Amino acid sequence: MRVVESMNKEKITIIGAGHGGYSATADMILKGYDVTLYELPEYRENLFPLIKTGKLRVTGEIQGIVDIPKIEIEINKAIEFATIILIITHGGTHRKLAEMMAPFIKGEQIIVLLPGYTGGALCFEQIFKQKGVKKGYTLAEANTLPYACRKITGEPAVHVKLYLKKFLISAFPAVKNDEFLSVFQKLYPNAHKVENVLETGFNNGNPVLNVVPCVFNAGRIEYAKGEYQHFQEGVTPSVARVMGELDLERIGVGKSLGIKLVPYLERVMETGYVQSNASWYEAIQTSLHLTAKGPDSLQHRYLTEDVPYGLTPWYHFAKDRNIDVKLMESLIQLASALSDENYFETGRTLEEMGINDMTNHELNQFLLYGS
Amino acid sequence: MRVVESMNKEKITIIGAGHGGYSATADMILKGYDVTLYELPEYRENLFPLIKTGKLRVTGEIQGIVDIPKIEIEINKAIEFATIILIITHGGTHRKLAEMMAPFIKGEQIIVLLPGYTGGALCFEQIFKQKGVKKGYTLAEANTLPYACRKITGEPAVHVKLYLKKFLISAFPAVKNDEFLSVFQKLYPNAHKVENVLETGFNNGNPVLNVVPCVFNAGRIEYAKGEYQHFQEGVTPSVARVMGELDLERIGVGKSLGIKLVPYLERVMETGYVQSNASWYEAIQTSLHLTAKGPDSLQHRYLTEDVPYGLTPWYHFAKDRNIDVKLMESLIQLASALSDENYFETGRTLEEMGINDMTNHELNQFLLYGS
Repeated sequence: MRVVESMNKEKITIIGAGHGGYSATADMILKGYDVTLYELPEYRENLFPLIKTGKLRVTGEIQGIVDIPKIEIEINKAIEFATIILIITHGGTHRKLAEMMAPFIKGEQIIVLLPGYTGGALCFEQIFKQKGVKKGYTLAEANTLPYACRKITGEPAVHVKLYLKKFLISAFPAVKNDEFLSVFQKLYPNAHKVENVLETGFNNGNPVLNVVPCVFNAGRIEYAKGEYQHFQEGVTPSVARVMGELDLERIGVGKSLGIKLVPYLERVMETGYVQSNASWYEAIQTSLHLTAKGPDSLQHRYLTEDVPYGLTPWYHFAKDRNIDVKLMESLIQLASALSDENYFETGRTLEEMGINDMTNHELNQFLLYGS
Repeated sequence: MRVVESMNKEKITIIGAGHGGYSATADMILKGYDVTLYELPEYRENLFPLIKTGKLRVTGEIQGIVDIPKIEIEINKAIEFATIILIITHGGTHRKLAEMMAPFIKGEQIIVLLPGYTGGALCFEQIFKQKGVKKGYTLAEANTLPYACRKITGEPAVHVKLYLKKFLISAFPAVKNDEFLSVFQKLYPNAHKVENVLETGFNNGNPVLNVVPCVFNAGRIEYAKGEYQHFQEGVTPSVARVMGELDLERIGVGKSLGIKLVPYLERVMETGYVQSNASWYEAIQTSLHLTAKGPDSLQHRYLTEDVPYGLTPWYHFAKDRNIDVKLMESLIQLASALSDENYFETGRTLEEMGINDMTNHELNQFLLYGS
């Protein structure tokens, strides 16, 4: 690894020690970067296996055992010395994280949300602006986590089932895209540049992929407590058809914003997630996660993240542009009822992204130039 | 039976040879009435076991083996000689049946919908009016089928798990209620008079009881093809909670119409369906149908009947009175997506009931006096 190491001078802080954080930590250390791993106080038990053993094992499409990375529990130490910060956390932490990080952002740092859900980078920008963070940083956002991965419970280990063959990324403002990509593609050669950070957000597949089966199997999930094959059993032909309809609504919202979105099924083959895209049903039945067990409760990111940070911002865009998204709205409504939380209110809004009351022209200028 | 028979001069035609029709046929024959059983052409195979054996066996809370009733496949013969017509069919047949029956309605006949879903009697009235049926008939509508029952597949037999301890009924116009009840309570002493045929419709428990678990277990239903215990497994605490919220919406719609509805849980103990009503979850977990198997597909009356003839008319009332019923609307939307049919459009409307553009005062006058 030493040859590689000497080539990679970036100091990377990874925020989040969940499935994705473990994978990225191993991946970046194996690529020779100087990595610091930070976890939020409320999820700190994620760090215990690493602290205990001093090692991190990765299996699957990435393989190796790496020495324990630097582990930080103080945000200032995690941020100050990093040149690149990869944020790999639940969408619900973005606001809080931005506020915690703001005082320590210095100079030309690059902050990447892996993924941003929808508008994550814009939310960071708003908070940084409010907190008076000095310009110079670059925000960026991916459409998805670059790994299909699962931690081995209680062990300092993660299994990477798939290193996505392709994922989408953009900087904010997008005018920095080429400069940003010249650095970021060294970390992730499979990152593919798109127009701006709304194109990444609207190309997050999870709100369609996860919310529909979750709502239509809510009873099953709560009864079986995870002991069933969620996609294989839960995505039946009718459920799959509704996923397709929701995807059309997503594309319609994009269109109203001037973003040309391709159907998820056209995109997903490129990631390596599925073996067929002849239909939503076939795609799911040939997917990598086919035999994965179900969510073990309704308090699962398929609802608690993919609704408020995925469907909800899409819905707010739709309402703002007078686009009819009845299916999206109904799913948010029923997910809210199931979770006993009003996701229309608690989810991400255009105000939080700082782009309410913008025409499409103003929005595109803002996404490109940052003002 | 001969003593009873001599006391009961009514000639009863039962329309529909499903679970309810079988039960009512046996029940009325055992009570000594002269019974004719009619079935629509598209469901005629329901009659085969009866035609083949000449007998009908009933077990459970009603018991006996009765000689085959008169079976009719011509609507005129089924209608003309009846003094009472009990309509025990899928809500989707009401419109067609009213049109088929209209030419043969003569004199003082009583036509009872068991149940009417919501507004069934009003829909009959509209069609009878359009077809110029001579006044003199009495329409009536129950809130529910008086039996919890299941046919024994392929056999001339039905099992009556519960003869409801109490159900609700009203005539249209309601001014005829006492006269109507004096006849009808001989057939059904457990029938309890309510204000009018909207009170019966809004006291149909099925749209809440069936649609919520059906939507939240759609994947399970389609995957398991009925081989799971729908209420026991499918009505989890979260699903049950949403049922309670939908019931509140139902009560709110009733309030906007000036109908005072009590919560379903207050009413259901009186029927004998459940052993506890401490919460929706407990009610379902102590219900008669707890271990019943699930619907074997999504083309099941829990969706195809309880949505378009239950939730949809409630929704139209709500919209007409500017009442917010987001949960109801979302459930109709998702049930529509699952069924690939727009239940907002194909379901029962206020126009079909002939009561659009009425104020509450006009509506109440109409329900009471028929004009």
